[in-house]
Amino acid sequence: MKHGLNTNNSGKNPCLVGVSSVASSIANRSVLRWQAGSATKRVTDALAVEEPLEIRVETRSVAVTMRTPGHDAELAAGFLLTEGILRRASDVLKIATHSRNRTGNVLDVFLAPGVTVDFARLTRHVFASSSCGLCGKASIDAVRQKFKPVKSKLCIAASLLAGLPARLREQQSAFDATGGLHAAALFDAAGKLLVVREDVGRHNAVDKVLGHALLKGWLPLDRHILLVSGRASFEILQKALAARVPVIAAVSAPSSLAVDFAKANGQTLAGFVRGDRLNVYTHPTRVDLRD
Amino acid sequence: MKHGLNTNNSGKNPCLVGVSSVASSIANRSVLRWQAGSATKRVTDALAVEEPLEIRVETRSVAVTMRTPGHDAELAAGFLLTEGILRRASDVLKIATHSRNRTGNVLDVFLAPGVTVDFARLTRHVFASSSCGLCGKASIDAVRQKFKPVKSKLCIAASLLAGLPARLREQQSAFDATGGLHAAALFDAAGKLLVVREDVGRHNAVDKVLGHALLKGWLPLDRHILLVSGRASFEILQKALAARVPVIAAVSAPSSLAVDFAKANGQTLAGFVRGDRLNVYTHPTRVDLRD
Repeated sequence: MKHGLNTNNSGKNPCLVGVSSVASSIANRSVLRWQAGSATKRVTDALAVEEPLEIRVETRSVAVTMRTPGHDAELAAGFLLTEGILRRASDVLKIATHSRNRTGNVLDVFLAPGVTVDFARLTRHVFASSSCGLCGKASIDAVRQKFKPVKSKLCIAASLLAGLPARLREQQSAFDATGGLHAAALFDAAGKLLVVREDVGRHNAVDKVLGHALLKGWLPLDRHILLVSGRASFEILQKALAARVPVIAAVSAPSSLAVDFAKANGQTLAGFVRGDRLNVYTHPTRVDLRD
Repeated sequence: MKHGLNTNNSGKNPCLVGVSSVASSIANRSVLRWQAGSATKRVTDALAVEEPLEIRVETRSVAVTMRTPGHDAELAAGFLLTEGILRRASDVLKIATHSRNRTGNVLDVFLAPGVTVDFARLTRHVFASSSCGLCGKASIDAVRQKFKPVKSKLCIAASLLAGLPARLREQQSAFDATGGLHAAALFDAAGKLLVVREDVGRHNAVDKVLGHALLKGWLPLDRHILLVSGRASFEILQKALAARVPVIAAVSAPSSLAVDFAKANGQTLAGFVRGDRLNVYTHPTRVDLRD
């Protein structure tokens, strides 16, 4: 199975040029399968592909992430959105594979005139500037310097929110094959699935979804719901804030800092979202709990 | 519940001074619990704590990681082991909380005389040096420059290996409470659990386990098994290699690069290790599949 790097963008967004499909998100490996009481068998197992991707901005290297190939231009766009560099599709002049690299694992992002980058800040971790007093609150404050709290009057029924993981799983083809991928998905206020992306890294899956939305011109996502297949960490909430997502739902548990961050930034955070039940940790006014 | 930062080390390892317990690994937050057909309730939910930790070497900042507080000195030691800086307990002169920081979220690692650090290399990602040809193979080669392949004649019964996750779960107290933590554990050749650590970050849990082993003087771990509660990525295998672990077992799926890395470096990798079954992806001679 081949996954195009920007299946949903090519031909529609003129800023994506030279980025072609070079790798599949699934690879087969031979494996010995042992089961108690049965003969051991040699079988072929489908695995999630993990490869490095180097993201360059104006030819300068700013990040290397281990990711599942596919939708790489979206990953780069989402990463730069959540780092505060990109705000809209028109900020991107071009996203292209590095000309001297044949693996497809190096992407060059060229910015529109007038879009500026503080490279010193981008290549450093946001927390590195807090020379003392490093704590959860300092982390929240550091992010808040870049992104204002979300304001959105979105209100959705609890039963609709609880049913989103089932809709995600219907679309999760690679996960079904490998069992090794995280998924993230964006839904509209009516619960319609707009985009789903999978990756070995949970942050990458979110970056791909948000990058897709940015390149499609959907931002701000203030009438949308972001769903993640696993746990909700601080960084997931931070990324959602950059795209102005008011409701974040996780199939598993949130961390303490994810809850504190969501509370401080006006985000509704739901956890353990599983069919007929869910927990609302922050800003419950956006969830109609009678339903 | 309070978790000491080095409960198992203080008083035994003279290099750990000034590092005291400052935070719990569990925090309570108020939550609205919705269930279809029932009245919504306000309850208290136990969450995994997530806080930043800055690791300094000789007073220079080399990394900031989002981690669950507890066993921080082990986390710092394990991180520096897997980055190729530390090789044995005697390489560490002292690990101490930064004197001007009261949150306990900044650690200073002081090295023994003669232990050298290439700061330029340490603070950059290992892959950043490959200016072209960035791919899975380049990543494996970059790590191989630091660590030789593992050689170990360890051989264990498949049934013993398959039973390790159950032994891990017996010790996973915080996980039972929050559902939000990854776990890593080290076992000896007889399947005896030596140490288990939990963290919101899967890499951190492995760093804590390996850092514990380093500070205890257990290295090389060439007669040991490393078990992780989730998926096995490239970086998990890389960390295990730094500590010379010959057998790595994961409850969930490995990535393609984890398999390729294990194969290239003499490591036995088992995945989907679940009670009465498992898959062996690489170097199966260390697993007795008749049993």
